[in-house]
Amino acid sequence: MTVVAVVLAGGTGTRLYPASSPETPKQFRAVGPGEGSLLSRAVSRAGRFADEVVVLTREAYADRVPEHAPGAAVLVEPEPKDTGPALTYAAFELRERYDDPVLVCLPSDAHVGDDAAFADDVGRAIDLACERGGLVTLGVEPTYAATGYGYLKPGAAVGSAGSGADGGYEVERFVEKPDAGAAARYREHGCLWNAGTFVWTPDAFLSAARESALAPLVAALGAGDPEPFDAIGAVSVDRGLLEEAENVFVVPTGVEWDDLGTWDALERVRPADGDGNVVDGDALALDAEGCVLATDADSHVSVVGVSDLVVAVHDGRVLVVPKHEAERVREAFAELEERGML
Amino acid sequence: MTVVAVVLAGGTGTRLYPASSPETPKQFRAVGPGEGSLLSRAVSRAGRFADEVVVLTREAYADRVPEHAPGAAVLVEPEPKDTGPALTYAAFELRERYDDPVLVCLPSDAHVGDDAAFADDVGRAIDLACERGGLVTLGVEPTYAATGYGYLKPGAAVGSAGSGADGGYEVERFVEKPDAGAAARYREHGCLWNAGTFVWTPDAFLSAARESALAPLVAALGAGDPEPFDAIGAVSVDRGLLEEAENVFVVPTGVEWDDLGTWDALERVRPADGDGNVVDGDALALDAEGCVLATDADSHVSVVGVSDLVVAVHDGRVLVVPKHEAERVREAFAELEERGML
Repeated sequence: MTVVAVVLAGGTGTRLYPASSPETPKQFRAVGPGEGSLLSRAVSRAGRFADEVVVLTREAYADRVPEHAPGAAVLVEPEPKDTGPALTYAAFELRERYDDPVLVCLPSDAHVGDDAAFADDVGRAIDLACERGGLVTLGVEPTYAATGYGYLKPGAAVGSAGSGADGGYEVERFVEKPDAGAAARYREHGCLWNAGTFVWTPDAFLSAARESALAPLVAALGAGDPEPFDAIGAVSVDRGLLEEAENVFVVPTGVEWDDLGTWDALERVRPADGDGNVVDGDALALDAEGCVLATDADSHVSVVGVSDLVVAVHDGRVLVVPKHEAERVREAFAELEERGML
Repeated sequence: MTVVAVVLAGGTGTRLYPASSPETPKQFRAVGPGEGSLLSRAVSRAGRFADEVVVLTREAYADRVPEHAPGAAVLVEPEPKDTGPALTYAAFELRERYDDPVLVCLPSDAHVGDDAAFADDVGRAIDLACERGGLVTLGVEPTYAATGYGYLKPGAAVGSAGSGADGGYEVERFVEKPDAGAAARYREHGCLWNAGTFVWTPDAFLSAARESALAPLVAALGAGDPEPFDAIGAVSVDRGLLEEAENVFVVPTGVEWDDLGTWDALERVRPADGDGNVVDGDALALDAEGCVLATDADSHVSVVGVSDLVVAVHDGRVLVVPKHEAERVREAFAELEERGML
């Protein structure tokens, strides 16, 4: 068996503008705690459990990968169409490339508090995936009622020979990103965050994909279609496959985890000062409260007399948004793109 | 008679951080409408009424002046001690350097809406200063109840041969920066802004200075003291001399004028968009109101969902402060200086 980590590095991360830009999305940036870029941290994390590391990305970013992941192979998705097509393509392409591969698919741009504990939990997921021939997700135990993540509800416990009784659970169902009330209920009822980390063999995945919305893509790939992605629209692997599939399991993990999707995430992964300000970089907060201040190495931010603001600076580009509206950075990015100002 | 413009360019302009920095105070920056730096605009303005232009500055800035004022002489004040000592030194130094000089002292960092009208009004002040041998200030007709400027109250009208009946007025009294209520009353009662623009002959000034708090400095200069500024503390020319002097006149001017002292000044000298945002540079305001957004040529600011904020960017340094607290930028500057972070 060959454990192959598939690090998904094709995203644009627009909500983390200006750290994310069209040329340099957030996975190539040093966001949050840790050394090096998010991608280099993800590859290093994968090195703890994987025999081989493959970075799956889009054409435009492929040349940047070796600088962040010198030892990794690079697999270029034919077209960016979200995780469903990308992971189908990866399963198809990698199934013959390695000896008896099991794929551990994980994001390139998440924060993980403890790489060793994460590797242990991935190890349990690998055991389960291999023994059951199923599709295994890692489910993060929520530390707050997040509205930014999808949840999954564990069902019956399933043991595995490798990990014993706490090998994992059947997944009863997946649920989309909830509102605040639903998030609190999900958390109370033991639901887990869907952290976008999946373990399966190519055969198990492709077999399930043939019964899913991804079937046309599997067929096109099998037929040697020169433009296989024309067969399919953009869809996440959760919605395109996992939500309806049989044989889906979850292995819970208690590691500190964050998708670093929006700037307010820094509050959860960085310590705050006595006034609740979180600084990632170089900043002065004077009579300011609850702010998130992020700079690159060449910048400095001063805030005076403000509350609950995000101020982020990269490459001479500045973003200011109320912390609780950090999702709206996406709108600014879209508007700047529309105006040709990126 | 030689009209000599004395352009005061020794200030630090800390409230306009980060456009102002210890190395590059605001007079060397292109702030507000107009071409080139504030200093170059002031020198060009002075060229309309002056035969000679002298830039009066501190040692640390002297080398920067020629780049902004190629045709001007540079006079270096021995020590930065506010306008009282600086203008005493200028009067003493320049009295023999030019033939029958009359000095027009003006700031290097103010916004003037109409240079030609300003030159006309300065011309009337020159007439008055020469005929009366007095100390003449330019008084700006207030366009709002400013609390950031000192005021002066005109008294009896005085004619001049050159300018006729509307040559000017005696100054009844000077008043310090008022609170909002007092500012409104001053404006109603016809008080004028003290715009830091003064006309006098060196003899008239030095004669008045000998009867003022500046007397020890005049004596030290006359005695050839090698460290003349040791004789005096820092004091403005208003407080150190004009408030108590005889023979002080004011020539009113209706030009648009602003000292560009704080970032909110940009609202008064730049047009706003439909949501009341004022942009000096390159910015995107999305669902934002009443903001002042200022950038240098290499920067870009995006604000989303915020109101009444100043966001200013220069050389990778960012400042965010509520517009109505723009005075507090001084505190941030002091704190950064204290921490060695400038």
